[in-house]
Amino acid sequence: MGILSKRSKFADSIFSEEGRYADLLAKEGERITSLDSGDPVKYFKTPDYVINSYIKALKDGKTFYTKGDGLADLKDAVIKRYRRMYNADFDRDSVVVTHGLSEGISMINSAFVDRGDNVMLFRPYYMQYPVYVNMNEGKVITQDYNEDNDWSIEIDAVRKGISKLRKLPKYMMVTNPNNPTGTVLPRRVLKELVDTANEHGIFIISDEIYDEMVFGNVRYTSISEVAKGVPHMIMNGASKNFDATGFRIGFLITPGKDKKSIEVKNKLIDYALTRLCVNTTAQYAIADAMNNQRVHNVETRRIAKEIEKRVMFSFKLLSENEYVKTVKPHAAFYLFPKIRFDMLKIKSDKDFVYRLMKDKGVWVREGSGFGAPDHFRIVSLAPKDILEDAILKINDFCRKNKR
Amino acid sequence: MGILSKRSKFADSIFSEEGRYADLLAKEGERITSLDSGDPVKYFKTPDYVINSYIKALKDGKTFYTKGDGLADLKDAVIKRYRRMYNADFDRDSVVVTHGLSEGISMINSAFVDRGDNVMLFRPYYMQYPVYVNMNEGKVITQDYNEDNDWSIEIDAVRKGISKLRKLPKYMMVTNPNNPTGTVLPRRVLKELVDTANEHGIFIISDEIYDEMVFGNVRYTSISEVAKGVPHMIMNGASKNFDATGFRIGFLITPGKDKKSIEVKNKLIDYALTRLCVNTTAQYAIADAMNNQRVHNVETRRIAKEIEKRVMFSFKLLSENEYVKTVKPHAAFYLFPKIRFDMLKIKSDKDFVYRLMKDKGVWVREGSGFGAPDHFRIVSLAPKDILEDAILKINDFCRKNKR
Repeated sequence: MGILSKRSKFADSIFSEEGRYADLLAKEGERITSLDSGDPVKYFKTPDYVINSYIKALKDGKTFYTKGDGLADLKDAVIKRYRRMYNADFDRDSVVVTHGLSEGISMINSAFVDRGDNVMLFRPYYMQYPVYVNMNEGKVITQDYNEDNDWSIEIDAVRKGISKLRKLPKYMMVTNPNNPTGTVLPRRVLKELVDTANEHGIFIISDEIYDEMVFGNVRYTSISEVAKGVPHMIMNGASKNFDATGFRIGFLITPGKDKKSIEVKNKLIDYALTRLCVNTTAQYAIADAMNNQRVHNVETRRIAKEIEKRVMFSFKLLSENEYVKTVKPHAAFYLFPKIRFDMLKIKSDKDFVYRLMKDKGVWVREGSGFGAPDHFRIVSLAPKDILEDAILKINDFCRKNKR
Repeated sequence: MGILSKRSKFADSIFSEEGRYADLLAKEGERITSLDSGDPVKYFKTPDYVINSYIKALKDGKTFYTKGDGLADLKDAVIKRYRRMYNADFDRDSVVVTHGLSEGISMINSAFVDRGDNVMLFRPYYMQYPVYVNMNEGKVITQDYNEDNDWSIEIDAVRKGISKLRKLPKYMMVTNPNNPTGTVLPRRVLKELVDTANEHGIFIISDEIYDEMVFGNVRYTSISEVAKGVPHMIMNGASKNFDATGFRIGFLITPGKDKKSIEVKNKLIDYALTRLCVNTTAQYAIADAMNNQRVHNVETRRIAKEIEKRVMFSFKLLSENEYVKTVKPHAAFYLFPKIRFDMLKIKSDKDFVYRLMKDKGVWVREGSGFGAPDHFRIVSLAPKDILEDAILKINDFCRKNKR
């Protein structure tokens, strides 16, 4: 008997290995340009209205334990936000505040998944989703977003996929806006997906943590607009929309009044109570900042617009590289190019990422970590001169490795 | 197939039920005196040196994602603290920063426990320990602290207990100073326990979150002083020693350089990386406050001394009650009286707690939640007038329910 549990082997990520390699190169004196981490705060200071709310909460002594499932003030701010933005309607018990969405993902899988249970994810997925399914000894069933159709979902394929299963998935989960592709799902497609889930009695979950990071001319639909009356969950948080990654504030919202939704929301509260509470001061800060709607809108728009410029700048530069093919993003801060292996002397996305890091000092992430080998993810948050330098290096790297 | 996982039934606590009952009574207009929650910040404002460090970190823009396993500055502060206090020696990789010790407990059980694995806990235990063992489908094996011997551990009984097991526990866990009893383990006993664990190859874990909350004349021993060379883990955090419960900063420390310890510490880092990081600003705040040793010592002594006064005040008042019997605490802020059912018309600790709440508006916690039925836990943090009123009510309640 080893000291570690068998399931603990799933607590690992190919990105940790990338990180160790980057550290190694840095120790050898290499200068690494990191386009790996989706942290806007590295380039855009958390705005003053958020920081000031945080400082006020500290000065007001808000440093005690609060309710495990979340501060009432923050829950109320979330309820108001969803009413304002999406005309959604739910009560306090529908909202659970988590240590960032990471804990949210963990909680969802603990609540839903027993050994051998199926979960349906769409590829490419956020890297953490399958990790927590696996830790709970569940089985990941995948469907693909269609890269050739703007990374949308083909409903017929989903229906066919479901019909082939001997055991229905406990839930299906989409990311919208998407990480790593930066695309958003059309309203019609999202509605059809919700209907499909509902017809089969599959609980549907939408991770919408980038919902205010949508580019100017794009129409965005939250699941809360098209799933009224259907058992569903919304994942969101403060990291991206409030440019406050280090606060670690996430939300799980289960609006329904149906039996399934009520079972789920009550159980999420149980999990939340079990581990006491989330950083109290940060909860007060985000509640206050979320209610400070006018300033929030101005600041978030300012940051999102600047990020859009940087993403489009990178997208354009990368379009000059015939050895990769990239779908134009609609939101967030990612590019997810497909590698044209037919034209390159490179054998895998891992090979691509490690050699790029070694030869050019540019760190991007392997698509395999997102369930989409043959791709890599670029975080396009750095200032233009850094992005320009890095992407020209990627382009040069491809040219030097052409077949 | 229900929507929830089978194991999710373990995400529950009898204290949640108590809480709902307290809420209900409050709604009916009852004034409830809450002696249920071990939150010092409710009565002792988090000291200025900690708050100022936190505000400084916010003003300095420390709101980004930091390393998943913990901020290097905080790890270094923890290393220095243990060198200073216990002459212990370990490196950065030995320390993992968690979302409070709650997440630490969860992480430990994920890392160690597969379905059917044994874990050895000592009763009374902190209520969360068995919850996470059960969530991982492990089995709790118990040994008892000996109430008749100052809640110490009888090593012979432990040896005998281990010898009867068909399968050794993956780890054994003690709480020292103890919650809910408020006692500390004598150095000799702790050393014997460490030796026993080592002889049987059982990993030993000591939760020492109250290690600076020890009363004036009591000699305290950390496991780090008596387990050199033996695979062990120390649990600690900022909640109690820094009077900063709402920060949610915990530490797991695995000092060993043996094979088991290295496997464990590396796996804990993997778990930590999987869920990104702990609130970054709070980590900077505690790093800074921990390095501010002189001020920290003065402030922590001041608070601990005042708490000692309150605990001893409650202890004395409660000694006048012949219907309960309480071991004198040496640390922390709890009293854990045994109920003399032979003298009372009360049938269980649950009965005691609910009727006390209804009749007298005083909320204490059921011993059953700590694995010790026939007891209840009093948190003795409130100002003396509140404590006096509440404990006189408890005494009166007992008299009125005498056989």
